[in-house]
Amino acid sequence: MAPSATTLKGQPLDRPALDSLLRRRLFYTPAFEIYGGIAGLYDYGPPGCGLQANIIDQWRKHFILEEDMLEVDCSVLTPHEVLKTSGHVDKFADWMCKDPKNGEILRADHFVEEVLETRLKGDKEARGQKIEEKEEDPKKKKRKNKGAVEAVKLEDAVVQEYEEILAKIDNYDGNELGELIKKYDLRNAATGVQPSPPVAFNLMFQTAIGPSSNVPGYLRPETAQGQFLNFAKLLEYNQQQMPFASASIGRSYRNEISPRAGLLRVREFLMAEIEHFVDPQGGKKHTRFNDVKDVELVLLNRETQLSGKTDVKKVTIGEAVANGTVDNETLGYFLARIHLFLKKIGVDQTKIRFRQHMANEMAHYAADCWDAELLTSYGWIECVGCADRSAYDLSVHAKKTGAPLLVRERLPEPITIEEYQVEVDKKKFGPHFKKDGRVVEAALVSTSQEKREELSKTLESADSIAIDVPGVGDGKVVVPKELVTIAKRKRVENTREFTPNVIEPSFGIGRILYSLMEHCYWTRGSEGGDEARGVLSFPPTVAPTKVLIVPLSSNDQFRPFCANLSQRLRKLGISSRIDDSSATIGKRYSRNDELGTPLGITIDFQTVKDKSITLRDRDSTKQVRADEDTIVAAIQAVVEGSKTWEDVQAELPAFEGQEVEVTVR
Amino acid sequence: MAPSATTLKGQPLDRPALDSLLRRRLFYTPAFEIYGGIAGLYDYGPPGCGLQANIIDQWRKHFILEEDMLEVDCSVLTPHEVLKTSGHVDKFADWMCKDPKNGEILRADHFVEEVLETRLKGDKEARGQKIEEKEEDPKKKKRKNKGAVEAVKLEDAVVQEYEEILAKIDNYDGNELGELIKKYDLRNAATGVQPSPPVAFNLMFQTAIGPSSNVPGYLRPETAQGQFLNFAKLLEYNQQQMPFASASIGRSYRNEISPRAGLLRVREFLMAEIEHFVDPQGGKKHTRFNDVKDVELVLLNRETQLSGKTDVKKVTIGEAVANGTVDNETLGYFLARIHLFLKKIGVDQTKIRFRQHMANEMAHYAADCWDAELLTSYGWIECVGCADRSAYDLSVHAKKTGAPLLVRERLPEPITIEEYQVEVDKKKFGPHFKKDGRVVEAALVSTSQEKREELSKTLESADSIAIDVPGVGDGKVVVPKELVTIAKRKRVENTREFTPNVIEPSFGIGRILYSLMEHCYWTRGSEGGDEARGVLSFPPTVAPTKVLIVPLSSNDQFRPFCANLSQRLRKLGISSRIDDSSATIGKRYSRNDELGTPLGITIDFQTVKDKSITLRDRDSTKQVRADEDTIVAAIQAVVEGSKTWEDVQAELPAFEGQEVEVTVR
Repeated sequence: MAPSATTLKGQPLDRPALDSLLRRRLFYTPAFEIYGGIAGLYDYGPPGCGLQANIIDQWRKHFILEEDMLEVDCSVLTPHEVLKTSGHVDKFADWMCKDPKNGEILRADHFVEEVLETRLKGDKEARGQKIEEKEEDPKKKKRKNKGAVEAVKLEDAVVQEYEEILAKIDNYDGNELGELIKKYDLRNAATGVQPSPPVAFNLMFQTAIGPSSNVPGYLRPETAQGQFLNFAKLLEYNQQQMPFASASIGRSYRNEISPRAGLLRVREFLMAEIEHFVDPQGGKKHTRFNDVKDVELVLLNRETQLSGKTDVKKVTIGEAVANGTVDNETLGYFLARIHLFLKKIGVDQTKIRFRQHMANEMAHYAADCWDAELLTSYGWIECVGCADRSAYDLSVHAKKTGAPLLVRERLPEPITIEEYQVEVDKKKFGPHFKKDGRVVEAALVSTSQEKREELSKTLESADSIAIDVPGVGDGKVVVPKELVTIAKRKRVENTREFTPNVIEPSFGIGRILYSLMEHCYWTRGSEGGDEARGVLSFPPTVAPTKVLIVPLSSNDQFRPFCANLSQRLRKLGISSRIDDSSATIGKRYSRNDELGTPLGITIDFQTVKDKSITLRDRDSTKQVRADEDTIVAAIQAVVEGSKTWEDVQAELPAFEGQEVEVTVR
Repeated sequence: MAPSATTLKGQPLDRPALDSLLRRRLFYTPAFEIYGGIAGLYDYGPPGCGLQANIIDQWRKHFILEEDMLEVDCSVLTPHEVLKTSGHVDKFADWMCKDPKNGEILRADHFVEEVLETRLKGDKEARGQKIEEKEEDPKKKKRKNKGAVEAVKLEDAVVQEYEEILAKIDNYDGNELGELIKKYDLRNAATGVQPSPPVAFNLMFQTAIGPSSNVPGYLRPETAQGQFLNFAKLLEYNQQQMPFASASIGRSYRNEISPRAGLLRVREFLMAEIEHFVDPQGGKKHTRFNDVKDVELVLLNRETQLSGKTDVKKVTIGEAVANGTVDNETLGYFLARIHLFLKKIGVDQTKIRFRQHMANEMAHYAADCWDAELLTSYGWIECVGCADRSAYDLSVHAKKTGAPLLVRERLPEPITIEEYQVEVDKKKFGPHFKKDGRVVEAALVSTSQEKREELSKTLESADSIAIDVPGVGDGKVVVPKELVTIAKRKRVENTREFTPNVIEPSFGIGRILYSLMEHCYWTRGSEGGDEARGVLSFPPTVAPTKVLIVPLSSNDQFRPFCANLSQRLRKLGISSRIDDSSATIGKRYSRNDELGTPLGITIDFQTVKDKSITLRDRDSTKQVRADEDTIVAAIQAVVEGSKTWEDVQAELPAFEGQEVEVTVR
């Protein structure tokens, strides 16, 4: 069993309490709430915005700046033709069915899963077994009419059938899901009726670009396509040097059938995607792989999953690439870099794993894919995908548009290629085949080297050859010897052309942000025995605000000190907020702990006398006191990461005076 | 006449040359170009992204951090009901007509304008007058079939009529535009036929949210609505303190009828909007107005525009508010802050003006509006709007949803209000009016204080009063004296409730970015008399990359020096790029000047010997030479703005060695 969700301090995670904190402090809020809200759409308030901006800033430094990636910012509105070519129009869909009685729309796979699981629970109850609460799956959370568990015993064989179906629930297409619904008479708990047969529902939002709807289009479901379409320009910008990566940070849109699970399944979301273009020849080596080879990752590969095990262990990425668990260095390099990024922003190291996609689970464009999953109270959540998209996208767009989405590389030395070449005698060919001439010639020219070798041998002894030309006559066409020459010849090549493969690390920023909030959350009892108070222990790098400045009271004497400190910190690029509200110091610090601000400064009457100030640590609530310059230097060191709070505490005199309820006017 | 567009050095601006540079260097590129492109959609490449990110970063510091604004990040997808209430569904439209022959869609006002202007030009030509090229208007630029000017003389009266129409072209509605087309027989030059009568075309992109299109919605046309809907939560977050501002940076969408003029009229664009909520009582003072009162602005107010003059002069914002040109301190404060921001990012000070909207030109929600306009080769372009939206938005959303989008302020002392109150005798009222009772009562209750005073006096002598109740009987209803009491009474109030007014500075980031590129552009002849070379003299703060590192050749000896410098600069947060391509030093610097990188470092054989390096200034091409530490310190000072290049040049020894064409392998 996977570990269940806990807080940073190992307490069982009380999600409703956390949710209430996050909404009260305006980390996020349902969008359009005064109009009743729209499922799957959320707004971020000031602390959510700050956290998001800091995660993005770290991401940009960790990936784009560190590796000189080429950042692009592309159009969200995308014409139909582009997404038709990429395969999204035909394949980017979920199966949905409708309850004919109450009109409820159900996602077919989730519906089948829910009903079978409810029956299995009922069976266990009837058998008097303890029902283990499975990890919750965000896909299924909070559906109103999930149906009560009824204690009904099932045949042993039926239990086994159900379990087998659930194990491969992601593999069924719409027809198969429809058959399962009929075969097992699966009914919507809300109405007691069977839903209609599943139909495909495309997840892209559709719109029309221009007046009189002249260009049908969609909101992009990923930022990747814009990067692929600009490949030739980016290669040129990169002075034809390979490999290179482009990157993009921006919103994408997926019209989920019935989104639940808060920020984890939304219809509008921020993505950060990298497209690393690499030569498919030479094993996809990476020049910086050595830098990361000792990074340890928890890997859950296909074989382990198929065997039903989840007892994974840590391995270095060097080992995983060497033993073939991870296909190549470039893919491995990015898995390690993703891990290091998640670590840097404060994700709990014990709650990360990399899971390989099963063959039937991958997106239509992927050749291999590993997800970085983070453990939350909703279970293991896919937060970063790292897919090998092979040459799929560049190839289909090049084929459709004729644009040269490829790399021309000057060979170190010209190479001589010996190959069978086909030549037709144009003068005789046309008159012989008349209107079919062009098609027959195309069929000849498109033959493989093997086929040509065979045809060439035939021509040595025969007067003609027969080739397949679908659509002409009975599909077989006889070409007389005098119309065609097939011979082995030499050709000198100075350049090599290839379509790069793409390794794509793709980050769902909102999911990372939500998981991070769970991982950084914990509660502490107040000194007075009041109810537990929430704390969000964000690392200083990503905390929305770094310093809270609290005057002891609203006494006018404190004002200039607050203003001066705030300005000083601003000049150092350190965000701070003054809280001069009339609440008690304790309440103000509590509010602040909920906002995740790592450091707090108190200005009191002593400050007015000797300019000394107090610095408080959010996590330990310990305080130190020193003159302003010393405290500002300590703040800077902690925010930059060059010192920890423990260092500061060891260096500066402790202060025990406050953190009591001081009533102020 | 307004000045025509020039480069930074006063040269006439060659827009095609600049455009070619911007596309070649991938500042921006038409989106989906390999699919033929879609008008009004563009992608930003690496330097465009960098420039945009730096402008946004400066904006966030200048506005959000400086004034503790509450940043929010709201949903782009917006349900129909919200935008119906805000007025966008009904009023956010342009008039379009269609050419019945070739199907071309025309924006009606632009079409009328174009044809009349072409005729006036023809008239001037026929009269032998010089045709002054009017400033180009981006709305009209580049239409393919604009029609050649034919020398046809018009009646003097007709000339005057045309000129009057053109002066108020923004005031006509669809019917009126249709009448003008008929009256003057305006024909599409491409086909020679009159277009169809204008119909309203809503500029919002429509889509459906959820499966089976259950919620009709739009892509937001502005970020403002999300901020208004969250007003109550933001006020709570701000601990009920007024005034305060929220801010949002994000994309918005407008389905322009036929977008032209490159980045200036696009369908998808980045906005940065501030909603400053202020008490409408007390003259909308601003506590920090004093900080900006001496800032000088070029103001073009309504009266000046009506009188047909444009000879504006600079005034301080203090003077402008004092003499009533600008309505209040808060509006004035933001105009000055906008000016300071534009100055900071490098906008040409001689190419900014603030133009007040004419009454009929304002958006449906605005009470007053000033645009910061920047002069470009397309004429004066609205880049920032600063509107007083009064209480419009909060009021309509509160009325529609019942949400309390208002401020409750505890009065310093309770106040006693004396007012006429209306009371009906419910027992008698119902039976008397039967089904009309409720409507009649509502009409009574909604009477004004003046009306109540009048009715009360009537009741002193008469047995009944007559009031207007539309829809009941003949619209006049007689209410007998015994059913109603209207009397003057006292009431004590402890709190005051008000709906805040909103001052909204709204920035079109793409337009600012494009104007800035024009303002920073100039050309210099190369030493050898080659063709002019483009330079983009961005200030270091916003330049996409700060430092170019150029090894003299691809000699391996130089590599560690380049890598070390690049890493050192990265640690200081200064972006750099290494160009070790095989082009000549001169070509590499040229490329770099086009990318707007302010500083360049050269690594040569002398560096290998004594570790000294050369620093080059983009604008003067002057170079200095010193040891690495000194050069890095100089770079940091220039990038931070604490020193100028002139300071650096005065302090460090000049270097005259390079900037020659050195052929390298």
